[in-house]
Amino acid sequence: MSQSQAERSAAAMWANDRASQGLGMQIAEVTPGRAVLTMSVREDMVNGLDVCHGGFIFTLADSAFAFACNSYNQLTFAQHCAVTFHAPGRLGDTLTATAQEVTRQGRSGLYDVTVTDGSGALIATFRGHSRTVKGQHYQEDTE
Amino acid sequence: MSQSQAERSAAAMWANDRASQGLGMQIAEVTPGRAVLTMSVREDMVNGLDVCHGGFIFTLADSAFAFACNSYNQLTFAQHCAVTFHAPGRLGDTLTATAQEVTRQGRSGLYDVTVTDGSGALIATFRGHSRTVKGQHYQEDTE
Amino acid sequence: MSQSQAERSAAAMWANDRASQGLGMQIAEVTPGRAVLTMSVREDMVNGLDVCHGGFIFTLADSAFAFACNSYNQLTFAQHCAVTFHAPGRLGDTLTATAQEVTRQGRSGLYDVTVTDGSGALIATFRGHSRTVKGQHYQEDTE
Amino acid sequence: MSQSQAERSAAAMWANDRASQGLGMQIAEVTPGRAVLTMSVREDMVNGLDVCHGGFIFTLADSAFAFACNSYNQLTFAQHCAVTFHAPGRLGDTLTATAQEVTRQGRSGLYDVTVTDGSGALIATFRGHSRTVKGQHYQEDTE
Repeated sequence: MSQSQAERSAAAMWANDRASQGLGMQIAEVTPGRAVLTMSVREDMVNGLDVCHGGFIFTLADSAFAFACNSYNQLTFAQHCAVTFHAPGRLGDTLTATAQEVTRQGRSGLYDVTVTDGSGALIATFRGHSRTVKGQHYQEDTE
Repeated sequence: MSQSQAERSAAAMWANDRASQGLGMQIAEVTPGRAVLTMSVREDMVNGLDVCHGGFIFTLADSAFAFACNSYNQLTFAQHCAVTFHAPGRLGDTLTATAQEVTRQGRSGLYDVTVTDGSGALIATFRGHSRTVKGQHYQEDTE
Repeated sequence: MSQSQAERSAAAMWANDRASQGLGMQIAEVTPGRAVLTMSVREDMVNGLDVCHGGFIFTLADSAFAFACNSYNQLTFAQHCAVTFHAPGRLGDTLTATAQEVTRQGRSGLYDVTVTDGSGALIATFRGHSRTVKGQHYQEDTE
Repeated sequence: MSQSQAERSAAAMWANDRASQGLGMQIAEVTPGRAVLTMSVREDMVNGLDVCHGGFIFTLADSAFAFACNSYNQLTFAQHCAVTFHAPGRLGDTLTATAQEVTRQGRSGLYDVTVTDGSGALIATFRGHSRTVKGQHYQEDTE
């Protein structure tokens, strides 16, 4: 559960994550069991009222969840996620998703993610259930 | 609860929905309380293993949910959604999201969405809670 | 996935399930992946307005879910459950919970449960995620 | 949002809540947006392995949620709840449910509840969505 594991896992995942890259996400912080990602709401993410499609808010939260639950260099997948939308994301807003581990037992993990806008207002609340499988993000030195 | 309402509501929403359009979604069917949308998994939706980011699967389901719960020409928003991922979406797959109303009482609605791939395999199960507010998608003729 | 497995699993579980027995539940039907249970709303389940505490409605749904997901003679536990309350359960009402398997893959299962009252009105919608572990409800004959 | 409101609302609810009383729950703390309840796992709540039926754990969490979201002397109901079970509740354990408001906007509220056992171990995580309707728990002095 070292910081080095968290950073190397994130780097390996990020290199392959064309989806999160393509949406313009940025990793602000990764520590064991925790990740903070940001994303700006673009023209191609909104409807005619300049309100962000909830799917992109979910996607940002889901990416933060993924980096948090994969921070131990063990392949881990999202199994079940729930999201509550509190306020609209607006065109041009920079959204911040903060994912924090609640508990991890055996192969099962639970993570809470909050999405806020530039003013700190709560946009969405997300809870993700993860499942760890065999495999690593990078080959660890013999320890 | 007419078919005409469902089609005109969908047309008005779709015209403004740059997000769903930009992801290449297509509306296959809209009837009162029901909508079927399709989306092909593109290069910019996958990771290095050509597996679709769960966020895009959610987004497809969320759009189908939105067209279903807005099919009565009353502005309706997603409040809370839960998704379970059963199998990966693959690059090139055409995914189909089928949203069906479970119940609608007053301003609250519940909708189930299933996402399947081209072979009919179950990719994700989604359940959405909606809330109707004041406002219409198009101005109805005096009836 | 035989009917015999479902019935023998249910009988073994029921014999030990003091909780469901104590609440006056009855098993109306068990088949592979499916179970129907009933429960009458008693004085000790309601508040001053004779409205059933949501916890007992959940408990009935959870028991139906348990009998459905354990119908293959493999020990299976509830991991995550979500419930939506649509209408109150009333003192004296007989509630019926119908649990139906949506999908089962490896050790993970998804089950939908609906709870209705005596008039057939929808009281609650429940979705349960199960996880199978090692162990059986009864010792199977050598097959 | 006064402490007096929270306590008087709780007292009025509790006087009518035969269900929570009958399960032996006790209110350890109520403040605006927050409630802590305890319950001992009894013989009539367990199965043959002396493991508490998940329904009773949910019911404890749901009661804590109810006292927290009703602490403003406005009638408020549970709309949607999700629970994740982390570890079994055991016969004789005293479980503690701590409900804390996450956000409250207009008539909608979101509350997180954790259930722990006597040793402080996490038994369940619960998230509840509430909806406020017209009505009060007690008649307020003219203010």
